[in-house]
Amino acid sequence: MTHAFQPVLERIAQEIGALADRGRPADYIPALAAVDPGAFGMAVAELDGTVHGVGEWRRPFSAQSLTKVFTLALVLAEEGDALWEHVGREPSGNPFNSLVQLEYENGIPRNPFINAGALVVTDRLHRLTGDASGRLLRFLREESGDDRLGSDRDVAASEAEHGDRNAALAHFMASYGNITTPVPVLLREYFRQCAIEASCADLAVATGFLARHGLRADGSRLLSRSRAKQVNAVMLTCGTYDAAGEFAHRVGLPGKSGVGGGIVAVVPGTCTLCVWSPGLDARGNSVAGVAALDRFTTLTGLSVF
Amino acid sequence: MTHAFQPVLERIAQEIGALADRGRPADYIPALAAVDPGAFGMAVAELDGTVHGVGEWRRPFSAQSLTKVFTLALVLAEEGDALWEHVGREPSGNPFNSLVQLEYENGIPRNPFINAGALVVTDRLHRLTGDASGRLLRFLREESGDDRLGSDRDVAASEAEHGDRNAALAHFMASYGNITTPVPVLLREYFRQCAIEASCADLAVATGFLARHGLRADGSRLLSRSRAKQVNAVMLTCGTYDAAGEFAHRVGLPGKSGVGGGIVAVVPGTCTLCVWSPGLDARGNSVAGVAALDRFTTLTGLSVF
Amino acid sequence: MTHAFQPVLERIAQEIGALADRGRPADYIPALAAVDPGAFGMAVAELDGTVHGVGEWRRPFSAQSLTKVFTLALVLAEEGDALWEHVGREPSGNPFNSLVQLEYENGIPRNPFINAGALVVTDRLHRLTGDASGRLLRFLREESGDDRLGSDRDVAASEAEHGDRNAALAHFMASYGNITTPVPVLLREYFRQCAIEASCADLAVATGFLARHGLRADGSRLLSRSRAKQVNAVMLTCGTYDAAGEFAHRVGLPGKSGVGGGIVAVVPGTCTLCVWSPGLDARGNSVAGVAALDRFTTLTGLSVF
Amino acid sequence: MTHAFQPVLERIAQEIGALADRGRPADYIPALAAVDPGAFGMAVAELDGTVHGVGEWRRPFSAQSLTKVFTLALVLAEEGDALWEHVGREPSGNPFNSLVQLEYENGIPRNPFINAGALVVTDRLHRLTGDASGRLLRFLREESGDDRLGSDRDVAASEAEHGDRNAALAHFMASYGNITTPVPVLLREYFRQCAIEASCADLAVATGFLARHGLRADGSRLLSRSRAKQVNAVMLTCGTYDAAGEFAHRVGLPGKSGVGGGIVAVVPGTCTLCVWSPGLDARGNSVAGVAALDRFTTLTGLSVF
Repeated sequence: MTHAFQPVLERIAQEIGALADRGRPADYIPALAAVDPGAFGMAVAELDGTVHGVGEWRRPFSAQSLTKVFTLALVLAEEGDALWEHVGREPSGNPFNSLVQLEYENGIPRNPFINAGALVVTDRLHRLTGDASGRLLRFLREESGDDRLGSDRDVAASEAEHGDRNAALAHFMASYGNITTPVPVLLREYFRQCAIEASCADLAVATGFLARHGLRADGSRLLSRSRAKQVNAVMLTCGTYDAAGEFAHRVGLPGKSGVGGGIVAVVPGTCTLCVWSPGLDARGNSVAGVAALDRFTTLTGLSVF
Repeated sequence: MTHAFQPVLERIAQEIGALADRGRPADYIPALAAVDPGAFGMAVAELDGTVHGVGEWRRPFSAQSLTKVFTLALVLAEEGDALWEHVGREPSGNPFNSLVQLEYENGIPRNPFINAGALVVTDRLHRLTGDASGRLLRFLREESGDDRLGSDRDVAASEAEHGDRNAALAHFMASYGNITTPVPVLLREYFRQCAIEASCADLAVATGFLARHGLRADGSRLLSRSRAKQVNAVMLTCGTYDAAGEFAHRVGLPGKSGVGGGIVAVVPGTCTLCVWSPGLDARGNSVAGVAALDRFTTLTGLSVF
Repeated sequence: MTHAFQPVLERIAQEIGALADRGRPADYIPALAAVDPGAFGMAVAELDGTVHGVGEWRRPFSAQSLTKVFTLALVLAEEGDALWEHVGREPSGNPFNSLVQLEYENGIPRNPFINAGALVVTDRLHRLTGDASGRLLRFLREESGDDRLGSDRDVAASEAEHGDRNAALAHFMASYGNITTPVPVLLREYFRQCAIEASCADLAVATGFLARHGLRADGSRLLSRSRAKQVNAVMLTCGTYDAAGEFAHRVGLPGKSGVGGGIVAVVPGTCTLCVWSPGLDARGNSVAGVAALDRFTTLTGLSVF
Repeated sequence: MTHAFQPVLERIAQEIGALADRGRPADYIPALAAVDPGAFGMAVAELDGTVHGVGEWRRPFSAQSLTKVFTLALVLAEEGDALWEHVGREPSGNPFNSLVQLEYENGIPRNPFINAGALVVTDRLHRLTGDASGRLLRFLREESGDDRLGSDRDVAASEAEHGDRNAALAHFMASYGNITTPVPVLLREYFRQCAIEASCADLAVATGFLARHGLRADGSRLLSRSRAKQVNAVMLTCGTYDAAGEFAHRVGLPGKSGVGGGIVAVVPGTCTLCVWSPGLDARGNSVAGVAALDRFTTLTGLSVF
């Protein structure tokens, strides 16, 4: 089936332009708060890497938690199911940085996309490679073909400065033996990942392996078909903080959001998407981003349900 | 795409026959505990109602929570989004009959498939129709074409006798004003629903409207395309108690399990399934049932991811 | 040491009269909400039963949770330590009718003074005597010497009408086997106890056995010295809902409050007190009552610390 | 009233000698695990400083959480009620190093004796004095008259090495702005306090100001009568981890325990006690220590209830 994505994207951009309430950018670090909440970009990448876009789809933004998808895939590619002894696969039913559930479950985070879980996945990647953030950057550059893609030092420094909550999570899991990288090193690697800047085009293209059932841009295999399906499943059930149910309801696609205002989404076997608009709702998801994906699935009929 | 379901089912039955650990039947009421844990049946219904089966696919079993899918659909058909003021759509992150989350969220259950949520949905249906269990039975008979399908009085009575936990949930939500049917009436209706006996064939066929994007067996519309998609989304994110993530991971289909050992699943646009085997795992899902669906999606490549 | 209680009481009444913020009466049932929040009475009973009072110290009010002290003492007198298999002795660290802690601790309430614990104590007394509320009333009449003391039917009926939360607690504990009296019977007995009306004079005198190390008004022994000490300890650590620490801090006496606005307190070896003023603070304790007891311990130097 | 403490102590020592189950020493750091679980010492200090003892009452042991009493008193002496904006006064109803309650209450620990609360109190003392552990040591030396009393470097280093849980607590509260000392500095000061070594004699004598209603050994006032009473109240309601209710029940005195096996207790207006035996029960309190204090109050009739 062929989809004429460009006119769909343009129609969506027009409708989003009329959206009254755009939410508010994250303000826990100054670098994120400074962004114009009205900004909007969206890109669709076909299986062969052809990419369509609208709005500021080539402007780099702070990827933040979108990078968790790639880190997870890299660790699964390296050590497979061994990862699941250190982190679960169940929705958290609690805000994304909750310590409560972590305590009830003895230091094993519910899933790889809450902050605690992403720290564990970063710990694994760092143990396996000795250079977690470098490995991730290399992968993103290779997949997107964008060599300028990098991590913003100021944002990483600002994250570190306001990083007490993540430090608490890391020390807490270390107390259960579920993290072994020294906490300061782990946090440095983690914040470098969060601070990666990339455009909608970059991220839509780089997510392609999840629509191609595990195949990378160059045709080599990163993940088995079954593992690629698993990453999509984790995205659908856990990818949008405490709003995974509502996202599945409205959008019906595996997706992962970040507090920088980005969301990546996957139509398995068909295409991948990245949308960006920095205004967030109360649960930390981009208001215009969710609305745009909602319209996309309605206009194209592309949904997993 | 045509699928030759019969050979797939037979291969699955053979493999399941070799499964060493089949779990243990639910034993909270005697009627359920008495069932042979080795029993197994599976049915696939195509969009036109053609049904294929293997094992004890025509033997009625206790549908239990599988009925929650149909009650939810009936209420959405009647009152639409008004339901979502009384129950959420997020995974619970806790065992299925937890009071904890209910308290933190002021009497609004997380989703329609935990017991508290199903009590709320039954309360709505009873308010709308004056006969919740009767309305549900009529719907199941019409969709399955099986007029003998009914509720087992002994099972319902036994549920009531051991119903203190559900009575606690109902009174607790009543204290927040989120249930208005008198609690004893509500519990009677609820237990009658749980006690419905139906076969894999009946339930696979009756679930067909979810694969047909909202159309009933007779071609009339029960739910809009968008609402049908929403029910599938709730099944995928919340349908298997505290194991929704793992079910999505292994099976990758919207599904709903019951402590009677049944599981219904949907391949949107293609077919519906019902599998039954009474031995449960620690989280309350049929061991052989999950294994059979896992094999089905692997053998056919049918998964939403 | 002799204490001239009458002038102290009069000075307190004067100071309380000038108290600007008196809180708000409980309004969960109409009968309690109707009371004048400015009402105030206080009584001190010496060890020999001599009673001093000020304000409306002879006017009956709704004793509510104050009765939990006497029910506890009666069960301890009957079955001793066997009670502690069914209810704990630790502060709850949560509001008084929380279900959360109950669930984490498998149906064993933290202490006898939260609602769940009081339901368990009532269940025990009803099993032991076949007439929990009658037994309690007889004890209060005998100790206070006031034969007119009784339970208000309208209040009891009103409690029952708004009793969903307590019904939930009772069914929940029944589901763990920690309550065996049929829930409707148990609730009737419980609400009858709550609805007992008595004056400050009655209640100060009836509490005397706790200051006399277990001896009743007629000199016979209700509790051993050690058990009387234990009841005082439970009052100090658990007697004022989620404000036990602050009450110990300000007042420094074993005390038990009720949502009718009453508080009883004990100076072991010296005297007992009851104060009443229906305006409550956010944690359910009488504002003027706590203030009056605070002044009493400051003016007399009588505190356990 | 005069008490002949020496024969009471000797009788207790004899009875404790026959105690079969002595519990197990704390083993989270090697230095503590190495102690002989059969060791026992007990001291009683009269108001004038006269001290009686039995067993190893002059042998220094690791004071651990006993020091929290003195740090609390020093901060209250310096800044008074301002402290209570940073830490509560309610029992925690949860194990002593729980993060759960901290999260629900936005970074304000329930009381000064759980680890989180003690970190806050240390943070306050360090802000006020620039040398929290030095200030505490000076106070203990002055009150006990024992100049050799000091902090064990190996124990402090070992605590730091296993300090992830406390680091998590400190970072977590820092994320709410409730701790402002840099976390590594705060932890160093905190672990130095925990590692203080003192004997039963030292600690019983140093606690004297709480029995003298706020007066130090030299007759000068550390705390007002009202504040001294408050410290006793916090000890009674929160001093023995999650067993405060049972301690009040059995012993009936304000007390504070430490995982080194020590317990200090206060009989206001009469005397202070310190008992030491390193074997702990499941809740972290010295088995022989609680038993000895239980016997002491039974034999002397000295209890606050």
